[in-house]
Amino acid sequence: MSGIVVQNIERADQSLIDGLAKCGVSTVHEAQGRKGLLADYIRPIYSGARIAGSALTILAPPCDNWMLHVAIEQLKAGDILVVGTTSPSNAGYFGDLLATSAKAHGAKGMIIDAGTRDVRDLKEMKFPVWSKAVFAQGTIKETIGSVNIPIVCADALINPGDIIVADDDGVCVVRREEASDVLEKALAREANETDKRARFEAGELGLDIYNMRERLAEKGLKYV
Amino acid sequence: MSGIVVQNIERADQSLIDGLAKCGVSTVHEAQGRKGLLADYIRPIYSGARIAGSALTILAPPCDNWMLHVAIEQLKAGDILVVGTTSPSNAGYFGDLLATSAKAHGAKGMIIDAGTRDVRDLKEMKFPVWSKAVFAQGTIKETIGSVNIPIVCADALINPGDIIVADDDGVCVVRREEASDVLEKALAREANETDKRARFEAGELGLDIYNMRERLAEKGLKYV
Amino acid sequence: MSGIVVQNIERADQSLIDGLAKCGVSTVHEAQGRKGLLADYIRPIYSGARIAGSALTILAPPCDNWMLHVAIEQLKAGDILVVGTTSPSNAGYFGDLLATSAKAHGAKGMIIDAGTRDVRDLKEMKFPVWSKAVFAQGTIKETIGSVNIPIVCADALINPGDIIVADDDGVCVVRREEASDVLEKALAREANETDKRARFEAGELGLDIYNMRERLAEKGLKYV
Amino acid sequence: MSGIVVQNIERADQSLIDGLAKCGVSTVHEAQGRKGLLADYIRPIYSGARIAGSALTILAPPCDNWMLHVAIEQLKAGDILVVGTTSPSNAGYFGDLLATSAKAHGAKGMIIDAGTRDVRDLKEMKFPVWSKAVFAQGTIKETIGSVNIPIVCADALINPGDIIVADDDGVCVVRREEASDVLEKALAREANETDKRARFEAGELGLDIYNMRERLAEKGLKYV
Amino acid sequence: MSGIVVQNIERADQSLIDGLAKCGVSTVHEAQGRKGLLADYIRPIYSGARIAGSALTILAPPCDNWMLHVAIEQLKAGDILVVGTTSPSNAGYFGDLLATSAKAHGAKGMIIDAGTRDVRDLKEMKFPVWSKAVFAQGTIKETIGSVNIPIVCADALINPGDIIVADDDGVCVVRREEASDVLEKALAREANETDKRARFEAGELGLDIYNMRERLAEKGLKYV
Amino acid sequence: MSGIVVQNIERADQSLIDGLAKCGVSTVHEAQGRKGLLADYIRPIYSGARIAGSALTILAPPCDNWMLHVAIEQLKAGDILVVGTTSPSNAGYFGDLLATSAKAHGAKGMIIDAGTRDVRDLKEMKFPVWSKAVFAQGTIKETIGSVNIPIVCADALINPGDIIVADDDGVCVVRREEASDVLEKALAREANETDKRARFEAGELGLDIYNMRERLAEKGLKYV
Repeated sequence: MSGIVVQNIERADQSLIDGLAKCGVSTVHEAQGRKGLLADYIRPIYSGARIAGSALTILAPPCDNWMLHVAIEQLKAGDILVVGTTSPSNAGYFGDLLATSAKAHGAKGMIIDAGTRDVRDLKEMKFPVWSKAVFAQGTIKETIGSVNIPIVCADALINPGDIIVADDDGVCVVRREEASDVLEKALAREANETDKRARFEAGELGLDIYNMRERLAEKGLKYV
Repeated sequence: MSGIVVQNIERADQSLIDGLAKCGVSTVHEAQGRKGLLADYIRPIYSGARIAGSALTILAPPCDNWMLHVAIEQLKAGDILVVGTTSPSNAGYFGDLLATSAKAHGAKGMIIDAGTRDVRDLKEMKFPVWSKAVFAQGTIKETIGSVNIPIVCADALINPGDIIVADDDGVCVVRREEASDVLEKALAREANETDKRARFEAGELGLDIYNMRERLAEKGLKYV
Repeated sequence: MSGIVVQNIERADQSLIDGLAKCGVSTVHEAQGRKGLLADYIRPIYSGARIAGSALTILAPPCDNWMLHVAIEQLKAGDILVVGTTSPSNAGYFGDLLATSAKAHGAKGMIIDAGTRDVRDLKEMKFPVWSKAVFAQGTIKETIGSVNIPIVCADALINPGDIIVADDDGVCVVRREEASDVLEKALAREANETDKRARFEAGELGLDIYNMRERLAEKGLKYV
Repeated sequence: MSGIVVQNIERADQSLIDGLAKCGVSTVHEAQGRKGLLADYIRPIYSGARIAGSALTILAPPCDNWMLHVAIEQLKAGDILVVGTTSPSNAGYFGDLLATSAKAHGAKGMIIDAGTRDVRDLKEMKFPVWSKAVFAQGTIKETIGSVNIPIVCADALINPGDIIVADDDGVCVVRREEASDVLEKALAREANETDKRARFEAGELGLDIYNMRERLAEKGLKYV
Repeated sequence: MSGIVVQNIERADQSLIDGLAKCGVSTVHEAQGRKGLLADYIRPIYSGARIAGSALTILAPPCDNWMLHVAIEQLKAGDILVVGTTSPSNAGYFGDLLATSAKAHGAKGMIIDAGTRDVRDLKEMKFPVWSKAVFAQGTIKETIGSVNIPIVCADALINPGDIIVADDDGVCVVRREEASDVLEKALAREANETDKRARFEAGELGLDIYNMRERLAEKGLKYV
Repeated sequence: MSGIVVQNIERADQSLIDGLAKCGVSTVHEAQGRKGLLADYIRPIYSGARIAGSALTILAPPCDNWMLHVAIEQLKAGDILVVGTTSPSNAGYFGDLLATSAKAHGAKGMIIDAGTRDVRDLKEMKFPVWSKAVFAQGTIKETIGSVNIPIVCADALINPGDIIVADDDGVCVVRREEASDVLEKALAREANETDKRARFEAGELGLDIYNMRERLAEKGLKYV
């Protein structure tokens, strides 16, 4: 596959991105109609991080991290590196040196459908990574791939400039052109949840809050 | 499958339950003759919790968490929600709102042979969950299931009112009618282990403490 | 298989072992030419430990931990117990009592291609274990295996007396006779990385530091 | 766990069993309300077999096939051996000698939540097995289990005397006391499917046969 | 997610499709630069089929096969149904009735990132399916999805009208606009392979045919 | 890792190899004390083949099949190619061209802890392959490995010249120096099994043939 680096991509407004980060993955996923989740095998290397940013996409060959160096030159402050591979690999594409470089160029974190390593250092640097594996296995620099083309990462289609939201629940992608609408719905959802939470804390039942009893009876639920 | 909610179930004495909680999963599992463990893919969403409680069982359709709302109404203080599904699913059946409701009705925790989400909130609320996956994927409310019938959860048969013990080692079920006997054996085991631990710390070998040398030689073990 | 216990094995110099521990798994793995890694399913039961030691190897039957007792008698201070099995098993071969005994005899930690349990206790004792599973499932003591013979553990061949390095990135084995050479290369690598890290922090790109631009162009990479 | 062999179990009428065999797994599963399926990792060792029979249940320790010998004495003509284990195992519990013995005592086949071996011989003997693995790994005869108690096999609860239906689609269990009702519904379903099949062959659409268009529109489906 | 059915999609020339079918998956995949493969967990339900056709794409909810009925109305002769899901599912979305309907409307086969059932019937009908699982688990008809939008199926992005090639090696997607170019390269590759095969049969070595010896020596390969 | 090709290896007598082939994997595995099995994920690409031969070992980088060309030059008639990788890979290392070349140089088959492709052609050629995956994913030729050094393949240690036995039950390795002894034991085992099979066919029980009743009673087995 001939390699391409797309240098100028559109990014969403920072205010939208920041808003989505605050809502978190589960809320954003619901707000946009239950789409955009990456597969559940993508897990954070440490717990507690919650970030959002513009996707700088990388398509890399298996066990070959050359394109990560190429991609770092394309970073703008606040971007998130998102790596898909042309064939499955658990190799450790990313470690503390690359993280140092990515951080120096403004990266907020990385999502990789492969392995990462030096996780103790990454945690100390507070550079969050969501990956398929933690694996020290080294990579080579022999085959080119592409930067900033649409990729499939962990079952999800990701376009360059889409917004990535990531936290302990996993990773979600929001289309750039839908970000404003999704944020609005996510905020409405949060407002609604605050109210609901208070009622749940007071002991009200979901059966009553959501008027479920009649429909359950219609479906045939029997109490014995 | 027609849905049934069994409203009155027998529960074990609180003192038995509290006793089993203190012993922990590995000891209880050994004390009852190495049975009752749930599959090892069921893992806690955070480490350090150790609980026991009466199983309030839920049989739920795949990707459908409707019955959790139904189940919460049946909770008594100290119960543990235990969810099996009619077909495998990693979807996120359970999040912070349902946890708020379950906690308000006395639930001590949840065991689910599927996914959970909002894990950061659950950790802050100190509501422990043992699950097959952490996944933000939303669920629907379209198909009924049952509450408080015998279920299979992570390879184990669980009857409503059985005692669930859960900690960092995993999850174990104790039959309600065997709880008193199991606790007695578990406590005896612990007493015995305290003595053994002291001898091990002093450097005595298991080979001598358990008189293994002769039997090993009979089996043909050779030192070279 | 007739069981054998090899009582006297060669061990590497303590200074080499300590040096490798400081370098960590990813560096050591690279320094010895990207070989020696155990499979990535072997994970630490808690994060933050970094150890190295001489491998005391154990070949154990499935679901049978008898040979661990045999092996503990053969420990010397600083050894690491390394367990392979004759058939795959996730059972919990190792818990707090065995850890107490192993620690009393100088073991620094354990690597096991099977399950472990009592992980809360092991963490409190600061006895690090890298395992395939956390599982309370008990084992029996019926079939003999061997101690200090070459074994396969998590896809890697491990000879007794080889050096094991383990941290949050996983586990790596270094041949005893190559340890001195590997340490030298690992230290050179670390020195080089310190310099590189400073340049990356200052914003220099890997593309320039490693002179990659020309070769990428030769391979056909296009910027658009 | 103390071992028990229950010698006399109730079995369903042969006519019910034969009727269910003809319907096959997918139809029976639907007819009984989409319940009773074993996990999809249970696969036939060769394709084309379709059987039904009364479950003779076996709970066996990991890597130990002793109870299979015990169970064979309890066989009646037409029974199916169903094996669950007390801890996961892929070992080869069953081969040509045991199959010869089981066949001589009337067994129609075997379902095992573990491994089998000698699959070339089993195929030649036309003794069908549905298993989790094909693996030559031998087993021992050291620990007892039980025969004809309720077991969990591949996520499903199976009582002795329940009816097992198995074919290329997998394995399904029918409760003995529900067999007559399930057969009736399965036959009705088959009659209905014959009619439907003719209409589908003639080019009629499911959208029209099942009157789906209006409900799809209500849910918001848009044609563009 | 609001559901959409795109009714008119572009399809490639039949001659291109037929040409690609003859080349097979491995050759097509190489010819287009080693891209476009679906994940290797997608396997044929029987061996020996080799097909190509235009992708009619379906995005379906987990455990819900409603959209398959919707899609069949959109089939043109020679199409291949390609199903992705909004959340992972192994349920049996597809069986003999739907296959009868799909075949009546011209479908050549199905690719599904989920389960299928009635595999004995499908084999008899010679309706080939490539799936993630064989599982009798039934599905519901409650939630809408979309037809003929770009989907992710088994890690690959598939647009409606792309060409699917499937055989015993797996499944590959070719972009519609690249089909002519890919076919040309695939045919060239085949011609070249015929020549190579004759030389290999005559005993010539790849080392010589591809002039590898010098480069291997440069890389440091040593013969001892 | 610097690459090495060992050109002269010792091979076992052809008569021993042929004898082991006739016994098959399960018998050989038992005869040598239940050791030497490769992991059960290694499966034949078609059923019915049963071969034995001397291992020509290959250590290959992930997704790189260069060393297969190197290895073919080292083949002697009757050898089996055995491939381990330095990092896990499912890529298709081996297809019809390489098989043509390997066959021309006398190879009887291949065992590979990675993927293979062109499986329809391989079946037609009657060139049996046991692999971890069937996957069309192409490989590169950039990094060297080694030929005829000890390797780990699917959890088993394999030395060049060891004897590989492979059939539908999987793959087993026999140390060259133990082959004569193992064959003798395997033949004795077969003779014994012929006798046992006759007794099983006549309805005798394993309980009686092996005198198990007393020992079962001692272990506490109860008939109810």
